[in-house]
This record gives sequence, C-alpha cells and structure tokens, in this order.
Amino acid sequence: MQGRYTAAFRAELQDLMQWRRDVRRFRTDPVEAAVLDRCLAAFSLAPSVGLSEPWRILRVESAAARAAATANFEEANAKALAGYSGERAQTYAGLKLSGMREAPIHLAVFCDEDSAKGSGLGAATMPQTRAFSVVSAVTLMWLAARAEGLGLGWVSILDPVRLARDLATPPGWELIGYLCLGWPQADDTKPELEKLGWESRAAHLIMETR
Amino acid sequence: MQGRYTAAFRAELQDLMQWRRDVRRFRTDPVEAAVLDRCLAAFSLAPSVGLSEPWRILRVESAAARAAATANFEEANAKALAGYSGERAQTYAGLKLSGMREAPIHLAVFCDEDSAKGSGLGAATMPQTRAFSVVSAVTLMWLAARAEGLGLGWVSILDPVRLARDLATPPGWELIGYLCLGWPQADDTKPELEKLGWESRAAHLIMETR
Repeated sequence: MQGRYTAAFRAELQDLMQWRRDVRRFRTDPVEAAVLDRCLAAFSLAPSVGLSEPWRILRVESAAARAAATANFEEANAKALAGYSGERAQTYAGLKLSGMREAPIHLAVFCDEDSAKGSGLGAATMPQTRAFSVVSAVTLMWLAARAEGLGLGWVSILDPVRLARDLATPPGWELIGYLCLGWPQADDTKPELEKLGWESRAAHLIMETR
Repeated sequence: MQGRYTAAFRAELQDLMQWRRDVRRFRTDPVEAAVLDRCLAAFSLAPSVGLSEPWRILRVESAAARAAATANFEEANAKALAGYSGERAQTYAGLKLSGMREAPIHLAVFCDEDSAKGSGLGAATMPQTRAFSVVSAVTLMWLAARAEGLGLGWVSILDPVRLARDLATPPGWELIGYLCLGWPQADDTKPELEKLGWESRAAHLIMETR
C-alpha cells in the first residue's frame, strides 16, 4: 500500500491536521498503556538528521517532579503576564495556557546534543537540525495521539534550565517541549488563542520567489 | 468526522509516516501547481507558538539562485567529507545527500524572528519555539506531500548565512531547511543512510521516569 494513497485518505489526513490543535482542558481519567505506546511509536518513524534519533523522553510521574514543573510554569506565566498591560494583559490573564494540573500524562521531551549517533552527518553546518529532528518526532506523535482521540498540549512557558535541574537530566539534554497528554474535555477545532481574541490565523500563506 | 478516526485510518497514517522518509533521487518532470498548493496548505494547519505563524517560504526558481544554493551545498558537503577518514569517508562519499540538481521544486523555508504576530506569547522563556513552529509545519507538509506520492528531501548541509545572502532574504529570517520536492525515482521505505551502512535505526525508544 505504501506510496499509494487515495483522495479519501488525504481528506481525512487534512481533517486530522486541522483537529490537531493544542489542548489545555483535559479530563483526569487515565490513558491506557497500549494507547500511549501506539502514540510513542511515532518517534521511531520520525526523520532525524543523519539518523541521529536524538530524542530523549522523560515521563514525569512523581508528585514531587510534577509539582516542580507546574510551579515552574506558573511562575513563568505570572512573569509573562506582568510583561503585558491594559486590555492585552486582561486577555492574557483569561487564557488557559497549560493543562498540567489535570493531564494524566506528562512527558518532558529533550534533544541529546552529546549523542554520537549519526556521526554528525548533516549537523555540521546546521547543528540546530538535531533539535529540529525532535520537533518533527513530536509533531508525528501529536498526530498519532489525535488520531486516537487524545489531546496534546505543548507547554513552553517555563524555564528550561530550571526544569532540567529539577528533573536531574544528563548534561547535553536540551528541553524541546513539556507535553501534557490526556482525553480532551471538549471537541473543538478553534484554538483558545483565537477564541479569546489573542491572535488569529493568517488568511493565506505568503510565498516569495527568487 | 473530526476527532473520530478508525483503526483503518490509523494504520494508513502509520504507513504514511513510515513511507515519509527523505528522498534524494527525483525524476525531473514537473509537479502540477494544484498538487503543490495542496501540500503547502498544510502550513496553515500547523501549530505555532502564540499563533505566531512565523514561517516564510521562498520558492527558488531562477537558474542563478539555484546555482548559488547548489554550489553552497556542494562546498559544504566536500568540507564535511574532508572531516571523515578511512572507511567512514568512503561510505560518506558514496551517499547521495541532495537531489538539488534534479528536483523540479526548491523551497527555502525560514523563520521570521522579527515578526510581532502572537505578541511573544509562549516564546519569552523558549524563543527557539518560533523555529520549532516552522519545523512542525514542514513536517505536516512532508506528510501531505508523501500522501500525494511526492518525495521531499531536507538539505541541511549548506551554510545558512551564505544562503540568506545569496537569496537576499530580509533581516530576521533564519533558515530552517532547504527543501527539494518532486516525484521520486523509486518506491522505497529504507533510508539511504541505512542502506549504505552509515547508521541504523534504534531498536526501541528509551523512556525514563522521574
């Protein structure tokens, strides 16, 4: 079947990409291990520079580790709010920007910058492609999770150095994203930022030619 | 239909993710504009930090611009080869690492670090999430292209500063990837790097818990 896809499949794929949006409102009931495993399997199908596969995944389970990560987010978020004023600050304050207190699964995803796998192929001129490989893998997992009906929320409002220290990660591990995973409270395709008037999608893609 | 996907769809999605691999051997015949448009539409469905949508796409069309980009790759690739020795150098020399001379479509994809869209939400603590947003968008386009039967090759073996100068991009645009797009010469799911013994896929995903 590989390489031969129908128009019906492409339409459903587009539907999934639209439905993919970031989720911050989760139910607290658990996700079965088999479902999570199927999502994580997407990592092994992801592209990586020089086949370096630099992704490292930490499942954050203990109450202490979760509390540290949540406090990290809440402090960074309060600081971010303080950077806005007037109506903008009011809108920001009304946004729910993480589901860390409710999501049953927390994954901290890192890029191992010290890994020798791939022998540096492709990364000499653009070392950032190692981190990019991990982002691609997360994107594939995001789609796989949504195809299971799961919601995923990517939290970037936290101090990555503090998080690495709190989670005692090996040197060379750079945070790519802190991911919340769980069953969404509601079915919705419009992002919170659009609904509450923070920002809207661009009308069309701009392409220049040289 | 959104949010409700069948096991059959999930299996086909997994098949697509496997089939997604980087392509460097292209046929030179053109790609219809409508097909390219459907691939590019994936950008508008991608996640972006604070809905900043920082992706900027340059279609590289002129002979002069393509020659500059190709020379950039070929020099960087020769320099990379000089960094390996013995058997490793021999293997590297045998790898085809770009299809720039054959691919009918060249896209240089950038992240606009100066864009105010999204008002910085989510990017204060982790500014690299702007670039990550562009990587996510490219990953979605990659899947959309493969679902059309198209091949995509991501070239990172080039000097991004020189490329930006040669393409006269605005200040603040950081290169994410130079993409070759076209019909693949052959149907294959095994990456060139695996076939020629440069590197192999990890047997399984390692996950730690805290």
